[in-house]
Amino acid sequence: MDNNTLPEKIVGKMYDNDWFSQWLGIERLEVKQGRCVLKMTIRKEMLNGFAIAHGGITYSLADSALAFASNSHGRMSVSVETSISHTESLKEGDVITATAEEMSLSNKVGVYHITVTNQNNKVVALFKGTVYRTSKEWFPVEK
Amino acid sequence: MDNNTLPEKIVGKMYDNDWFSQWLGIERLEVKQGRCVLKMTIRKEMLNGFAIAHGGITYSLADSALAFASNSHGRMSVSVETSISHTESLKEGDVITATAEEMSLSNKVGVYHITVTNQNNKVVALFKGTVYRTSKEWFPVEK
Amino acid sequence: MDNNTLPEKIVGKMYDNDWFSQWLGIERLEVKQGRCVLKMTIRKEMLNGFAIAHGGITYSLADSALAFASNSHGRMSVSVETSISHTESLKEGDVITATAEEMSLSNKVGVYHITVTNQNNKVVALFKGTVYRTSKEWFPVEK
Amino acid sequence: MDNNTLPEKIVGKMYDNDWFSQWLGIERLEVKQGRCVLKMTIRKEMLNGFAIAHGGITYSLADSALAFASNSHGRMSVSVETSISHTESLKEGDVITATAEEMSLSNKVGVYHITVTNQNNKVVALFKGTVYRTSKEWFPVEK
Repeated sequence: MDNNTLPEKIVGKMYDNDWFSQWLGIERLEVKQGRCVLKMTIRKEMLNGFAIAHGGITYSLADSALAFASNSHGRMSVSVETSISHTESLKEGDVITATAEEMSLSNKVGVYHITVTNQNNKVVALFKGTVYRTSKEWFPVEK
Repeated sequence: MDNNTLPEKIVGKMYDNDWFSQWLGIERLEVKQGRCVLKMTIRKEMLNGFAIAHGGITYSLADSALAFASNSHGRMSVSVETSISHTESLKEGDVITATAEEMSLSNKVGVYHITVTNQNNKVVALFKGTVYRTSKEWFPVEK
Repeated sequence: MDNNTLPEKIVGKMYDNDWFSQWLGIERLEVKQGRCVLKMTIRKEMLNGFAIAHGGITYSLADSALAFASNSHGRMSVSVETSISHTESLKEGDVITATAEEMSLSNKVGVYHITVTNQNNKVVALFKGTVYRTSKEWFPVEK
Repeated sequence: MDNNTLPEKIVGKMYDNDWFSQWLGIERLEVKQGRCVLKMTIRKEMLNGFAIAHGGITYSLADSALAFASNSHGRMSVSVETSISHTESLKEGDVITATAEEMSLSNKVGVYHITVTNQNNKVVALFKGTVYRTSKEWFPVEK
Protein backbone atom coordinates (compact mmCIF):
# COMPACT_ATOMS: atom_id res chain seq x y z
CA MET A 1 0.00 0.00 0.00
CA ASP A 2 1.33 3.47 -0.91
CA ASN A 3 1.53 6.20 1.69
CA ASN A 4 0.71 9.13 -0.53
CA THR A 5 -2.30 10.64 1.20
CA LEU A 6 -2.44 11.87 4.80
CA PRO A 7 -4.80 9.04 5.87
CA GLU A 8 -2.45 6.44 4.33
CA LYS A 9 0.57 8.09 5.98
CA ILE A 10 -1.09 8.05 9.43
CA VAL A 11 -2.41 4.51 9.14
CA GLY A 12 0.94 3.33 7.76
CA LYS A 13 2.64 4.73 10.84
CA MET A 14 0.04 3.13 13.14
CA TYR A 15 0.23 -0.24 11.40
CA ASP A 16 4.04 -0.44 11.36
CA ASN A 17 4.07 -0.53 15.18
CA ASP A 18 0.86 -2.51 15.65
CA TRP A 19 2.20 -5.96 16.55
CA PHE A 20 -1.21 -7.46 17.21
CA SER A 21 -2.72 -6.34 13.87
CA GLN A 22 0.36 -7.88 12.25
CA TRP A 23 -0.09 -11.13 14.20
CA LEU A 24 -3.68 -11.21 12.94
CA GLY A 25 -2.36 -10.86 9.39
CA ILE A 26 -4.46 -7.77 8.63
CA GLU A 27 -4.14 -6.37 5.10
CA ARG A 28 -5.22 -2.81 4.28
CA LEU A 29 -7.39 -2.74 1.15
CA GLU A 30 -8.47 0.91 1.40
CA VAL A 31 -7.70 3.85 3.68
CA LYS A 32 -9.43 7.21 3.28
CA GLN A 33 -10.62 10.01 5.53
CA GLY A 34 -13.15 8.42 7.91
CA ARG A 35 -13.16 5.12 6.07
CA CYS A 36 -11.12 1.95 5.74
CA VAL A 37 -11.40 -1.62 4.50
CA LEU A 38 -9.34 -4.42 6.10
CA LYS A 39 -9.02 -8.12 5.35
CA MET A 40 -7.64 -11.20 7.12
CA THR A 41 -7.81 -15.01 7.14
CA ILE A 42 -8.90 -17.18 10.09
CA ARG A 43 -6.05 -19.45 11.25
CA LYS A 44 -6.19 -22.46 13.58
CA GLU A 45 -4.75 -20.59 16.59
CA MET A 46 -7.69 -18.13 16.34
CA LEU A 47 -10.33 -20.77 17.12
CA ASN A 48 -12.16 -21.29 20.42
CA GLY A 49 -13.49 -24.42 22.11
CA PHE A 50 -16.38 -24.68 19.63
CA ALA A 51 -13.85 -24.95 16.73
CA ILE A 52 -15.02 -21.59 15.38
CA ALA A 53 -13.24 -18.23 15.44
CA HIS A 54 -13.04 -16.71 18.94
CA GLY A 55 -15.27 -13.63 19.22
CA GLY A 56 -12.16 -11.61 20.03
CA ILE A 57 -10.75 -12.19 16.56
CA THR A 58 -13.59 -10.55 14.66
CA TYR A 59 -13.75 -7.83 17.33
CA SER A 60 -10.02 -7.16 16.92
CA LEU A 61 -10.27 -6.75 13.14
CA ALA A 62 -13.21 -4.35 13.55
CA ASP A 63 -11.45 -2.46 16.35
CA SER A 64 -8.37 -1.94 14.14
CA ALA A 65 -10.70 -0.64 11.41
CA LEU A 66 -12.22 1.77 13.94
CA ALA A 67 -8.78 3.02 15.01
CA PHE A 68 -7.56 3.48 11.43
CA ALA A 69 -10.74 5.19 10.15
CA SER A 70 -11.07 7.56 13.09
CA ASN A 71 -7.40 8.57 13.27
CA SER A 72 -7.22 9.14 9.52
CA HIS A 73 -8.47 12.74 9.85
CA GLY A 74 -5.18 13.72 11.48
CA ARG A 75 -6.16 14.00 15.15
CA MET A 76 -5.37 11.20 17.58
CA SER A 77 -8.61 9.49 18.54
CA VAL A 78 -9.31 6.90 21.22
CA SER A 79 -12.14 4.38 21.51
CA VAL A 80 -14.57 5.09 24.35
CA GLU A 81 -17.28 2.49 23.71
CA THR A 82 -17.68 -0.33 21.22
CA SER A 83 -20.24 -3.07 20.69
CA ILE A 84 -20.38 -6.11 18.44
CA SER A 85 -23.01 -8.68 17.43
CA HIS A 86 -21.61 -11.93 16.08
CA THR A 87 -24.21 -13.07 13.53
CA GLU A 88 -22.46 -16.01 11.84
CA SER A 89 -19.72 -18.33 13.01
CA LEU A 90 -16.38 -18.60 11.19
CA LYS A 91 -14.09 -21.56 10.68
CA GLU A 92 -10.42 -22.03 9.81
CA GLY A 93 -9.62 -20.70 6.34
CA ASP A 94 -12.52 -18.24 6.16
CA VAL A 95 -11.52 -14.83 4.84
CA ILE A 96 -13.15 -11.82 6.47
CA THR A 97 -13.36 -8.18 5.39
CA ALA A 98 -14.21 -5.25 7.68
CA THR A 99 -15.55 -2.02 6.20
CA ALA A 100 -15.58 1.03 8.49
CA GLU A 101 -17.95 3.86 7.68
CA GLU A 102 -18.21 7.17 9.51
CA MET A 103 -21.79 7.73 10.61
CA SER A 104 -21.27 10.94 12.55
CA LEU A 105 -18.35 13.29 13.27
CA SER A 106 -18.35 16.27 15.62
CA ASN A 107 -15.45 18.19 17.11
CA LYS A 108 -15.00 15.79 20.03
CA VAL A 109 -16.83 12.58 19.10
CA GLY A 110 -17.02 10.25 16.09
CA VAL A 111 -19.34 7.27 15.54
CA TYR A 112 -18.53 4.42 13.13
CA HIS A 113 -20.30 1.34 11.82
CA ILE A 114 -18.01 -1.52 10.91
CA THR A 115 -19.57 -4.37 8.95
CA VAL A 116 -17.65 -7.64 8.76
CA THR A 117 -18.42 -10.05 5.92
CA ASN A 118 -17.02 -13.45 4.90
CA GLN A 119 -15.72 -14.66 1.50
CA ASN A 120 -19.32 -15.26 0.37
CA ASN A 121 -20.24 -11.66 1.18
CA LYS A 122 -22.41 -12.73 4.10
CA VAL A 123 -22.49 -10.45 7.16
CA VAL A 124 -20.72 -12.20 10.07
CA ALA A 125 -20.53 -9.33 12.57
CA LEU A 126 -21.93 -5.85 13.14
CA PHE A 127 -19.75 -3.46 15.15
CA LYS A 128 -20.49 0.07 16.37
CA GLY A 129 -17.69 2.24 17.77
CA THR A 130 -17.56 5.65 19.42
CA VAL A 131 -14.28 7.57 19.71
CA TYR A 132 -13.13 10.64 21.60
CA ARG A 133 -11.07 12.94 19.39
CA THR A 134 -8.12 14.45 21.25
CA SER A 135 -6.55 17.72 20.13
CA LYS A 136 -3.17 16.03 19.49
CA GLU A 137 -2.13 15.86 15.82
CA TRP A 138 -0.38 12.87 14.19
CA PHE A 139 1.73 15.19 12.06
CA PRO A 140 1.69 18.67 13.61
CA VAL A 141 2.23 21.48 11.12
CA GLU A 142 5.46 23.28 11.96
CA LYS A 143 5.15 27.01 12.43
CA MET B 1 -7.40 -26.43 38.11
CA ASP B 2 -9.42 -29.47 39.16
CA ASN B 3 -12.42 -30.60 37.17
CA ASN B 4 -14.58 -31.80 40.01
CA THR B 5 -17.71 -29.74 39.60
CA LEU B 6 -19.93 -29.60 36.50
CA PRO B 7 -18.94 -25.96 35.72
CA GLU B 8 -15.23 -26.90 35.96
CA LYS B 9 -15.76 -29.98 33.79
CA ILE B 10 -17.55 -27.96 31.08
CA VAL B 11 -15.05 -25.10 31.12
CA GLY B 12 -12.15 -27.56 31.18
CA LYS B 13 -13.50 -29.15 28.01
CA MET B 14 -14.04 -25.73 26.38
CA TYR B 15 -10.58 -24.50 27.35
CA ASP B 16 -8.69 -27.61 26.21
CA ASN B 17 -9.76 -26.92 22.61
CA ASP B 18 -9.65 -23.12 22.79
CA TRP B 19 -6.44 -22.34 20.92
CA PHE B 20 -6.88 -18.60 21.08
CA SER B 21 -7.48 -18.48 24.86
CA GLN B 22 -4.33 -20.58 25.15
CA TRP B 23 -2.37 -18.19 22.89
CA LEU B 24 -3.54 -15.36 25.16
CA GLY B 25 -2.15 -17.27 28.14
CA ILE B 26 -5.44 -17.22 30.03
CA GLU B 27 -5.41 -18.84 33.50
CA ARG B 28 -8.63 -19.88 35.23
CA LEU B 29 -8.71 -18.64 38.83
CA GLU B 30 -12.33 -19.54 39.57
CA VAL B 31 -15.18 -21.29 37.73
CA LYS B 32 -18.66 -21.60 39.23
CA GLN B 33 -22.23 -21.63 37.97
CA GLY B 34 -22.73 -18.25 36.27
CA ARG B 35 -19.39 -16.88 37.39
CA CYS B 36 -15.71 -17.06 36.52
CA VAL B 37 -12.46 -15.24 37.10
CA LEU B 38 -9.67 -15.27 34.49
CA LYS B 39 -6.17 -13.77 34.44
CA MET B 40 -3.52 -13.06 31.80
CA THR B 41 -0.39 -10.99 31.17
CA ILE B 42 0.04 -8.43 28.35
CA ARG B 43 2.87 -9.47 25.99
CA LYS B 44 4.65 -7.41 23.32
CA GLU B 45 2.78 -9.03 20.41
CA MET B 46 -0.51 -7.85 21.97
CA LEU B 47 0.31 -4.15 21.59
CA ASN B 48 -1.09 -1.77 18.97
CA GLY B 49 0.46 1.26 17.23
CA PHE B 50 0.16 3.40 20.39
CA ALA B 51 2.40 0.86 22.28
CA ILE B 52 -0.56 -0.08 24.48
CA ALA B 53 -2.62 -3.30 24.49
CA HIS B 54 -4.86 -3.61 21.42
CA GLY B 55 -8.55 -3.25 22.38
CA GLY B 56 -9.10 -6.74 21.03
CA ILE B 57 -6.94 -8.27 23.75
CA THR B 58 -9.01 -7.04 26.69
CA TYR B 59 -12.18 -7.82 24.73
CA SER B 60 -10.97 -11.37 24.10
CA LEU B 61 -10.27 -12.05 27.77
CA ALA B 62 -13.72 -10.72 28.72
CA ASP B 63 -15.39 -12.66 25.90
CA SER B 64 -13.79 -15.91 27.12
CA ALA B 65 -15.08 -15.10 30.61
CA LEU B 66 -18.56 -14.58 29.14
CA ALA B 67 -18.42 -17.93 27.32
CA PHE B 68 -17.17 -19.83 30.37
CA ALA B 69 -19.62 -18.25 32.86
CA SER B 70 -22.67 -18.65 30.62
CA ASN B 71 -21.95 -22.23 29.52
CA SER B 72 -21.20 -23.33 33.09
CA HIS B 73 -24.88 -24.05 33.79
CA GLY B 74 -24.75 -27.03 31.42
CA ARG B 75 -26.56 -25.70 28.33
CA MET B 76 -24.59 -24.50 25.32
CA SER B 77 -24.87 -20.71 25.12
CA VAL B 78 -23.81 -18.34 22.37
CA SER B 79 -23.04 -14.62 22.52
CA VAL B 80 -25.59 -12.43 20.73
CA GLU B 81 -24.39 -8.96 21.68
CA THR B 82 -21.43 -7.63 23.64
CA SER B 83 -20.10 -4.17 24.42
CA ILE B 84 -16.92 -2.90 26.04
CA SER B 85 -15.61 0.43 27.31
CA HIS B 86 -11.86 0.68 27.58
CA THR B 87 -11.27 3.00 30.55
CA GLU B 88 -7.50 2.69 31.09
CA SER B 89 -4.68 1.78 28.72
CA LEU B 90 -2.42 -1.22 29.35
CA LYS B 91 1.26 -1.73 28.61
CA GLU B 92 3.56 -4.73 28.22
CA GLY B 93 3.86 -6.71 31.45
CA ASP B 94 0.56 -5.55 32.94
CA VAL B 95 -1.48 -8.36 34.49
CA ILE B 96 -5.24 -8.23 34.00
CA THR B 97 -8.08 -10.09 35.72
CA ALA B 98 -11.61 -10.47 34.36
CA THR B 99 -14.48 -11.24 36.72
CA ALA B 100 -17.76 -12.36 35.14
CA GLU B 101 -20.97 -11.93 37.13
CA GLU B 102 -24.42 -13.08 36.08
CA MET B 103 -26.82 -10.13 36.23
CA SER B 104 -29.88 -11.87 34.84
CA LEU B 105 -30.79 -15.38 33.69
CA SER B 106 -34.01 -16.49 32.02
CA ASN B 107 -34.80 -19.65 30.08
CA LYS B 108 -33.47 -18.27 26.79
CA VAL B 109 -31.28 -15.26 27.64
CA GLY B 110 -28.50 -14.46 30.10
CA VAL B 111 -26.84 -11.09 30.79
CA TYR B 112 -23.36 -10.75 32.30
CA HIS B 113 -21.14 -7.92 33.52
CA ILE B 114 -17.43 -8.56 33.15
CA THR B 115 -15.12 -6.16 34.96
CA VAL B 116 -11.46 -6.15 33.97
CA THR B 117 -8.89 -4.79 36.45
CA ASN B 118 -5.11 -4.42 36.36
CA GLN B 119 -2.49 -5.51 38.92
CA ASN B 120 -3.21 -2.37 40.97
CA ASN B 121 -6.90 -3.29 41.14
CA LYS B 122 -7.85 -0.38 38.87
CA VAL B 123 -10.76 -0.92 36.44
CA VAL B 124 -9.39 -0.99 32.87
CA ALA B 125 -12.49 -2.17 30.99
CA LEU B 126 -16.21 -2.67 31.50
CA PHE B 127 -17.86 -5.36 29.38
CA LYS B 128 -21.54 -6.32 29.10
CA GLY B 129 -22.55 -9.52 27.31
CA THR B 130 -25.87 -11.08 26.35
CA VAL B 131 -26.11 -14.77 25.42
CA TYR B 132 -28.77 -16.95 23.85
CA ARG B 133 -29.14 -20.26 25.69
CA THR B 134 -29.67 -23.18 23.31
CA SER B 135 -31.39 -26.37 24.46
CA LYS B 136 -28.27 -28.46 23.73
CA GLU B 137 -26.52 -29.91 26.82
CA TRP B 138 -22.74 -30.17 27.27
CA PHE B 139 -23.11 -33.49 29.04
CA PRO B 140 -26.53 -34.95 28.22
CA VAL B 141 -27.92 -37.25 30.87
CA GLU B 142 -28.32 -40.71 29.44
CA LYS B 143 -31.74 -42.22 29.81
CA MET C 1 -52.31 3.46 6.63
CA ASP C 2 -53.91 0.42 5.02
CA ASN C 3 -53.65 -2.99 6.61
CA ASN C 4 -53.44 -5.05 3.47
CA THR C 5 -50.20 -6.90 3.92
CA LEU C 6 -49.29 -9.18 6.84
CA PRO C 7 -46.64 -6.75 8.18
CA GLU C 8 -49.20 -3.89 8.10
CA LYS C 9 -51.81 -6.06 9.78
CA ILE C 10 -49.42 -7.05 12.59
CA VAL C 11 -48.07 -3.55 13.13
CA GLY C 12 -51.60 -2.13 12.97
CA LYS C 13 -52.62 -4.47 15.78
CA MET C 14 -49.50 -3.57 17.80
CA TYR C 15 -49.97 0.16 17.29
CA ASP C 16 -53.67 0.24 18.17
CA ASN C 17 -52.86 -0.87 21.73
CA ASP C 18 -49.56 0.98 22.06
CA TRP C 19 -50.54 3.93 24.26
CA PHE C 20 -47.03 5.27 24.58
CA SER C 21 -46.34 5.30 20.82
CA GLN C 22 -49.63 7.14 20.49
CA TRP C 23 -48.64 9.66 23.19
CA LEU C 24 -45.42 10.25 21.25
CA GLY C 25 -47.51 10.98 18.16
CA ILE C 26 -45.77 8.36 16.03
CA GLU C 27 -46.90 8.11 12.40
CA ARG C 28 -46.16 5.03 10.30
CA LEU C 29 -44.74 5.99 6.91
CA GLU C 30 -43.77 2.51 5.75
CA VAL C 31 -44.12 -1.03 7.11
CA LYS C 32 -42.64 -4.03 5.33
CA GLN C 33 -41.08 -7.37 6.28
CA GLY C 34 -38.02 -6.48 8.39
CA ARG C 35 -38.29 -2.77 7.72
CA CYS C 36 -40.27 0.26 8.85
CA VAL C 37 -40.13 4.05 8.76
CA LEU C 38 -41.68 6.14 11.56
CA LYS C 39 -42.04 9.87 12.09
CA MET C 40 -42.87 12.20 14.99
CA THR C 41 -42.56 15.81 16.15
CA ILE C 42 -40.75 17.00 19.31
CA ARG C 43 -43.18 18.69 21.72
CA LYS C 44 -42.42 20.84 24.77
CA GLU C 45 -43.21 18.06 27.29
CA MET C 46 -40.52 15.92 25.64
CA LEU C 47 -37.67 18.28 26.60
CA ASN C 48 -35.13 17.80 29.39
CA GLY C 49 -33.34 20.30 31.64
CA PHE C 50 -31.05 21.44 28.79
CA ALA C 51 -34.17 22.51 26.75
CA ILE C 52 -33.45 19.76 24.21
CA ALA C 53 -35.30 16.50 23.60
CA HIS C 54 -34.77 13.96 26.43
CA GLY C 55 -32.66 11.01 25.23
CA GLY C 56 -35.58 8.74 26.05
CA ILE C 57 -37.71 10.32 23.32
CA THR C 58 -35.42 9.44 20.43
CA TYR C 59 -34.77 6.04 22.01
CA SER C 60 -38.52 5.40 22.25
CA LEU C 61 -39.14 6.19 18.58
CA ALA C 62 -36.27 3.90 17.56
CA ASP C 63 -37.42 1.17 19.94
CA SER C 64 -40.93 1.25 18.43
CA ALA C 65 -39.32 0.96 14.99
CA LEU C 66 -37.35 -2.07 16.23
CA ALA C 67 -40.51 -3.72 17.59
CA PHE C 68 -42.51 -3.09 14.42
CA ALA C 69 -39.77 -4.19 12.01
CA SER C 70 -38.87 -7.36 13.90
CA ASN C 71 -42.44 -8.50 14.57
CA SER C 72 -43.47 -7.88 10.96
CA HIS C 73 -42.30 -11.35 9.88
CA GLY C 74 -45.18 -12.92 11.82
CA ARG C 75 -43.42 -14.29 14.91
CA MET C 76 -43.54 -12.41 18.21
CA SER C 77 -40.11 -10.96 18.89
CA VAL C 78 -38.75 -9.31 22.01
CA SER C 79 -35.84 -6.91 22.43
CA VAL C 80 -32.85 -8.38 24.28
CA GLU C 81 -30.28 -5.61 23.92
CA THR C 82 -30.34 -2.14 22.40
CA SER C 83 -27.87 0.72 22.19
CA ILE C 84 -28.12 4.31 21.01
CA SER C 85 -25.69 7.15 20.31
CA HIS C 86 -27.23 10.61 20.36
CA THR C 87 -25.22 12.57 17.80
CA GLU C 88 -27.20 15.83 17.52
CA SER C 89 -29.53 17.58 19.95
CA LEU C 90 -33.18 18.27 19.09
CA LYS C 91 -35.42 21.16 20.04
CA GLU C 92 -39.16 21.75 20.22
CA GLY C 93 -40.76 21.55 16.78
CA ASP C 94 -38.08 19.36 15.21
CA VAL C 95 -39.46 16.50 13.13
CA ILE C 96 -37.62 13.17 13.35
CA THR C 97 -37.80 10.08 11.17
CA ALA C 98 -36.58 6.61 12.19
CA THR C 99 -35.71 4.05 9.52
CA ALA C 100 -35.29 0.45 10.68
CA GLU C 101 -33.24 -1.91 8.53
CA GLU C 102 -32.71 -5.61 9.14
CA MET C 103 -28.99 -6.35 9.18
CA SER C 104 -29.19 -10.02 10.09
CA LEU C 105 -31.94 -12.58 10.68
CA SER C 106 -31.52 -16.15 11.93
CA ASN C 107 -34.08 -18.54 13.34
CA LYS C 108 -33.79 -17.18 16.89
CA VAL C 109 -32.10 -13.77 16.63
CA GLY C 110 -32.51 -10.61 14.52
CA VAL C 111 -30.25 -7.52 14.43
CA TYR C 112 -31.49 -4.11 13.26
CA HIS C 113 -29.93 -0.71 12.61
CA ILE C 114 -32.27 2.21 13.17
CA THR C 115 -31.09 5.58 11.90
CA VAL C 116 -32.89 8.68 13.17
CA THR C 117 -32.68 11.88 11.11
CA ASN C 118 -34.15 15.36 11.55
CA GLN C 119 -36.14 17.51 9.06
CA ASN C 120 -32.85 18.55 7.39
CA ASN C 121 -31.91 14.93 6.82
CA LYS C 122 -29.11 15.12 9.37
CA VAL C 123 -28.42 12.01 11.48
CA VAL C 124 -29.43 12.71 15.11
CA ALA C 125 -29.17 9.20 16.57
CA LEU C 126 -27.80 5.75 15.70
CA PHE C 127 -29.57 2.80 17.30
CA LYS C 128 -28.70 -0.91 17.16
CA GLY C 129 -31.18 -3.50 18.41
CA THR C 130 -31.07 -7.26 18.89
CA VAL C 131 -34.27 -9.28 19.30
CA TYR C 132 -35.08 -12.84 20.35
CA ARG C 133 -37.66 -14.42 18.05
CA THR C 134 -40.18 -16.55 19.98
CA SER C 135 -42.07 -19.37 18.27
CA LYS C 136 -45.43 -17.65 18.96
CA GLU C 137 -47.27 -16.40 15.85
CA TRP C 138 -49.23 -13.11 15.66
CA PHE C 139 -51.84 -14.75 13.43
CA PRO C 140 -51.57 -18.52 13.79
CA VAL C 141 -52.74 -20.45 10.75
CA GLU C 142 -55.74 -22.57 11.71
CA LYS C 143 -55.39 -26.22 10.93
CA MET D 1 -35.63 17.02 48.45
CA ASP D 2 -33.29 19.63 49.91
CA ASN D 3 -30.79 21.44 47.76
CA ASN D 4 -28.02 21.76 50.25
CA THR D 5 -25.13 20.06 48.52
CA LEU D 6 -23.68 20.96 45.11
CA PRO D 7 -24.97 17.72 43.49
CA GLU D 8 -28.49 18.41 44.84
CA LYS D 9 -28.33 22.03 43.66
CA ILE D 10 -27.27 21.02 40.14
CA VAL D 11 -29.81 18.20 39.83
CA GLY D 12 -32.53 20.42 41.29
CA LYS D 13 -31.84 22.98 38.57
CA MET D 14 -31.82 20.25 35.89
CA TYR D 15 -35.01 18.65 37.17
CA ASP D 16 -37.00 21.89 37.48
CA ASN D 17 -36.78 22.38 33.70
CA ASP D 18 -36.97 18.72 32.71
CA TRP D 19 -40.55 18.44 31.46
CA PHE D 20 -40.21 14.85 30.34
CA SER D 21 -38.80 13.59 33.66
CA GLN D 22 -41.73 15.38 35.29
CA TRP D 23 -44.22 13.75 32.90
CA LEU D 24 -42.70 10.39 33.85
CA GLY D 25 -43.30 11.25 37.52
CA ILE D 26 -39.68 10.73 38.51
CA GLU D 27 -38.88 11.16 42.22
CA ARG D 28 -35.33 11.71 43.43
CA LEU D 29 -34.49 9.43 46.35
CA GLU D 30 -30.77 10.18 46.52
CA VAL D 31 -28.35 12.51 44.73
CA LYS D 32 -24.62 12.48 45.42
CA GLN D 33 -21.41 13.02 43.47
CA GLY D 34 -21.42 10.37 40.73
CA ARG D 35 -24.47 8.60 42.10
CA CYS D 36 -28.25 8.92 42.16
CA VAL D 37 -31.35 6.86 42.86
CA LEU D 38 -34.64 7.62 41.08
CA LYS D 39 -38.12 6.10 41.34
CA MET D 40 -41.32 6.14 39.27
CA THR D 41 -44.59 4.25 38.74
CA ILE D 42 -45.72 2.68 35.44
CA ARG D 43 -48.96 4.30 34.22
CA LYS D 44 -51.36 3.11 31.50
CA GLU D 45 -50.12 5.63 28.91
CA MET D 46 -46.62 4.15 29.26
CA LEU D 47 -47.64 0.72 27.92
CA ASN D 48 -46.95 -0.70 24.45
CA GLY D 49 -48.95 -3.07 22.25
CA PHE D 50 -48.03 -6.07 24.44
CA ALA D 51 -49.70 -4.36 27.46
CA ILE D 52 -46.29 -4.03 29.13
CA ALA D 53 -44.18 -0.90 29.69
CA HIS D 54 -42.66 0.44 26.45
CA GLY D 55 -38.88 -0.07 26.42
CA GLY D 56 -38.51 3.70 26.13
CA ILE D 57 -39.96 4.21 29.61
CA THR D 58 -37.33 2.21 31.47
CA TYR D 59 -34.64 3.67 29.19
CA SER D 60 -35.85 7.20 29.98
CA LEU D 61 -35.69 6.67 33.75
CA ALA D 62 -32.16 5.24 33.44
CA ASP D 63 -31.10 8.02 31.06
CA SER D 64 -32.26 10.67 33.55
CA ALA D 65 -30.26 8.85 36.24
CA LEU D 66 -27.21 8.96 33.95
CA ALA D 67 -27.63 12.70 33.35
CA PHE D 68 -28.10 13.51 37.03
CA ALA D 69 -25.22 11.32 38.28
CA SER D 70 -22.73 12.51 35.66
CA ASN D 71 -23.55 16.22 35.91
CA SER D 72 -23.44 16.13 39.72
CA HIS D 73 -19.67 16.71 39.77
CA GLY D 74 -20.21 20.27 38.55
CA ARG D 75 -19.20 20.04 34.87
CA MET D 76 -21.83 19.77 32.14
CA SER D 77 -21.74 16.25 30.73
CA VAL D 78 -23.46 14.82 27.69
CA SER D 79 -24.33 11.24 26.84
CA VAL D 80 -22.32 9.79 23.94
CA GLU D 81 -23.39 6.15 24.00
CA THR D 82 -25.89 4.17 26.05
CA SER D 83 -27.14 0.59 26.00
CA ILE D 84 -29.92 -1.23 27.81
CA SER D 85 -31.03 -4.85 28.24
CA HIS D 86 -34.64 -5.30 29.26
CA THR D 87 -34.62 -8.44 31.41
CA GLU D 88 -38.18 -8.47 32.83
CA SER D 89 -41.42 -6.96 31.56
CA LEU D 90 -43.36 -4.38 33.58
CA LYS D 91 -47.09 -3.80 33.86
CA GLU D 92 -49.30 -0.91 34.95
CA GLY D 93 -48.81 -0.06 38.62
CA ASP D 94 -45.30 -1.50 38.89
CA VAL D 95 -42.88 0.76 40.75
CA ILE D 96 -39.32 0.92 39.41
CA THR D 97 -36.11 2.25 40.95
CA ALA D 98 -32.96 3.16 39.02
CA THR D 99 -29.61 3.26 40.81
CA ALA D 100 -26.74 4.94 38.97
CA GLU D 101 -23.19 4.04 39.96
CA GLU D 102 -20.01 5.57 38.57
CA MET D 103 -17.75 2.82 37.28
CA SER D 104 -15.01 5.01 35.84
CA LEU D 105 -14.25 8.74 35.67
CA SER D 106 -11.46 10.43 33.75
CA ASN D 107 -10.99 14.05 32.77
CA LYS D 108 -13.09 13.74 29.61
CA VAL D 109 -15.13 10.55 29.94
CA GLY D 110 -17.34 8.91 32.59
CA VAL D 111 -18.91 5.43 32.53
CA TYR D 112 -21.98 4.51 34.61
CA HIS D 113 -23.95 1.36 35.34
CA ILE D 114 -27.63 1.95 36.03
CA THR D 115 -29.56 -0.98 37.47
CA VAL D 116 -33.35 -0.81 37.36
CA THR D 117 -35.33 -2.98 39.80
CA ASN D 118 -39.06 -3.43 40.45
CA GLN D 119 -41.02 -3.30 43.76
CA ASN D 120 -39.93 -6.89 44.49
CA ASN D 121 -36.28 -5.93 44.11
CA LYS D 122 -35.97 -7.96 40.91
CA VAL D 123 -33.67 -6.57 38.17
CA VAL D 124 -35.81 -5.44 35.22
CA ALA D 125 -33.16 -3.62 33.16
CA LEU D 126 -29.39 -3.18 32.94
CA PHE D 127 -28.17 0.11 31.45
CA LYS D 128 -24.61 1.23 30.67
CA GLY D 129 -23.92 4.87 29.79
CA THR D 130 -20.84 6.77 28.65
CA VAL D 131 -20.68 10.57 28.87
CA TYR D 132 -18.35 13.24 27.52
CA ARG D 133 -17.49 15.81 30.17
CA THR D 134 -17.38 19.34 28.77
CA SER D 135 -15.35 22.08 30.44
CA LYS D 136 -18.47 24.18 31.11
CA GLU D 137 -19.42 24.52 34.80
CA TRP D 138 -22.99 24.48 36.14
CA PHE D 139 -22.12 27.12 38.74
CA PRO D 140 -18.91 28.88 37.68
CA VAL D 141 -16.91 30.30 40.55
CA GLU D 142 -16.78 34.08 40.21
CA LYS D 143 -13.32 35.58 40.25
